[in-house]
Amino acid sequence: MTIDERYGAIEGGGTKFVLVVGSSPTAIDAQEVIPTTTPAETLQRCIDFFQLYHAHRPLQALGVGMFGPVDLHPDSTTYGFITSTPKAGWGFTDIVGPLQRALNIPVGWENDVNAAAIGEAHWGAARGCDPAIYLTVGTGVGGGVIAGGRVLHGLIHPEMGHVLLPRISGDEFEGVCPFHGRCLEGLVSGPAIAARAGRAAGTLSADDPVWELVAAYLGMALMDFSLILSPQRIVLGGGVIGRGQLLPGIRAALQRHLNNYLVHPLFQADLADYVVLSALAGRAGVYGALEIARNAARA
Amino acid sequence: MTIDERYGAIEGGGTKFVLVVGSSPTAIDAQEVIPTTTPAETLQRCIDFFQLYHAHRPLQALGVGMFGPVDLHPDSTTYGFITSTPKAGWGFTDIVGPLQRALNIPVGWENDVNAAAIGEAHWGAARGCDPAIYLTVGTGVGGGVIAGGRVLHGLIHPEMGHVLLPRISGDEFEGVCPFHGRCLEGLVSGPAIAARAGRAAGTLSADDPVWELVAAYLGMALMDFSLILSPQRIVLGGGVIGRGQLLPGIRAALQRHLNNYLVHPLFQADLADYVVLSALAGRAGVYGALEIARNAARA
Repeated sequence: MTIDERYGAIEGGGTKFVLVVGSSPTAIDAQEVIPTTTPAETLQRCIDFFQLYHAHRPLQALGVGMFGPVDLHPDSTTYGFITSTPKAGWGFTDIVGPLQRALNIPVGWENDVNAAAIGEAHWGAARGCDPAIYLTVGTGVGGGVIAGGRVLHGLIHPEMGHVLLPRISGDEFEGVCPFHGRCLEGLVSGPAIAARAGRAAGTLSADDPVWELVAAYLGMALMDFSLILSPQRIVLGGGVIGRGQLLPGIRAALQRHLNNYLVHPLFQADLADYVVLSALAGRAGVYGALEIARNAARA
Repeated sequence: MTIDERYGAIEGGGTKFVLVVGSSPTAIDAQEVIPTTTPAETLQRCIDFFQLYHAHRPLQALGVGMFGPVDLHPDSTTYGFITSTPKAGWGFTDIVGPLQRALNIPVGWENDVNAAAIGEAHWGAARGCDPAIYLTVGTGVGGGVIAGGRVLHGLIHPEMGHVLLPRISGDEFEGVCPFHGRCLEGLVSGPAIAARAGRAAGTLSADDPVWELVAAYLGMALMDFSLILSPQRIVLGGGVIGRGQLLPGIRAALQRHLNNYLVHPLFQADLADYVVLSALAGRAGVYGALEIARNAARA
């Protein structure tokens, strides 16, 4: 990092966009939070914000972590677009194009989950861990994978929120995923918890019996992630994870399923260094976008 | 590749070791298959074989793909060892050490599944695909992952044969995995099929109803692999895959579970370019070991 580094970063969500100018979490020059309205208005407010700082002292690049699904593949005609989102007015919207044309600097581009994974890997709870997984559990469930120093795209990008899980004995709930019913997202997302409990997840007490099932299913999913990717650490974030004191139950369920099969010091005791909470308190995405900008500047 | 390249390669299995001298599948100078007896005797036969060719024209390096579990981590005091194998006499046996001392050339080292994944990636059905998965289904079930141009080790190495799967309605079989019961290996390995059918998998006709369940569970597992890693291709090998005309049933089950959730041309139609059979007919491991040797020579 040199003293002259300065980037723009956007974490774009369904309700708000977080905009930052700076070079690292401890070197933030400016920040703004704007509501997500129409694409044209929201992007114009982004452009206005960054142009103000860019004119004063140039930004080397912009990094974007965006709600999706988004098109990450440079060869695609819709690269840089939000694609088939259910969010009204935002389907098949070019994001990278207008930003790049207005600011005339390189624009790096990831989905929101990958941006958060990059944030945790560079500044947060997954620092020095490779491979690493960041899993967010909220309205949806999504995961990002760091492997070989880069966020993994693959054919499309991971969609690990939709893995299929065994039914826990006695649990008759059929899940809420419109594609897969009882997949992980269908079982533990905010809407799944609300459907199970008959009221919003946010209104349940921490000792509500629903949390035990949520923790048990998350432990199963982490078992599969551990077996398939052999990560050095799994970082958990998102609104549901913050509720219900889930972490000890998730770790206990994972430990039970592993059943001493994987032999490594990290799997001894209570998995306290293997399954951890996000260290960036809701800022993983926008800090990740700073790192995405840095990579775009180098490309 | 230069004309002078010449490597040794070992694919070490529980019943036989395949030894090769050469530089690629189309440039094999010599081959020998020896039975797996005691570690001392088996390793001495390997050394004798390679020394003969090494004396005549030097080998630049040796590559080894070994049955396991093996220790792949260079920092470990048991790096290069077969570790806690149930195979009598082979527990905690140093493999790399004796070979390296006798031949005095670099020795590259992987488990047998990773070697086969490397073989398929360089010479076989996964060529040009990254990330890619090689899954072998036989006495056990194991998978290797190619990501970022390298075989993925991670914290230990993938153990994707042990993922947990939903029960197919009406299937009361409890699985045979001593660690996880109904994990993938517990449901579809050779011993699992034998336990289900009451006789050896190899004696079942291709239209035995057992194969339908095996294909259905493999399709479920491939769903999870696809969601977690987003591979460009999945290559299937091993003795069970060769039986029962499993491929169409596996593809159909995967397609059913995906339920049009992942949008990509590869997921249209019958998945014929996405889930494929090994192209190396039982030679993936030893050809992979040649590539492991080439990497060891460069290191």
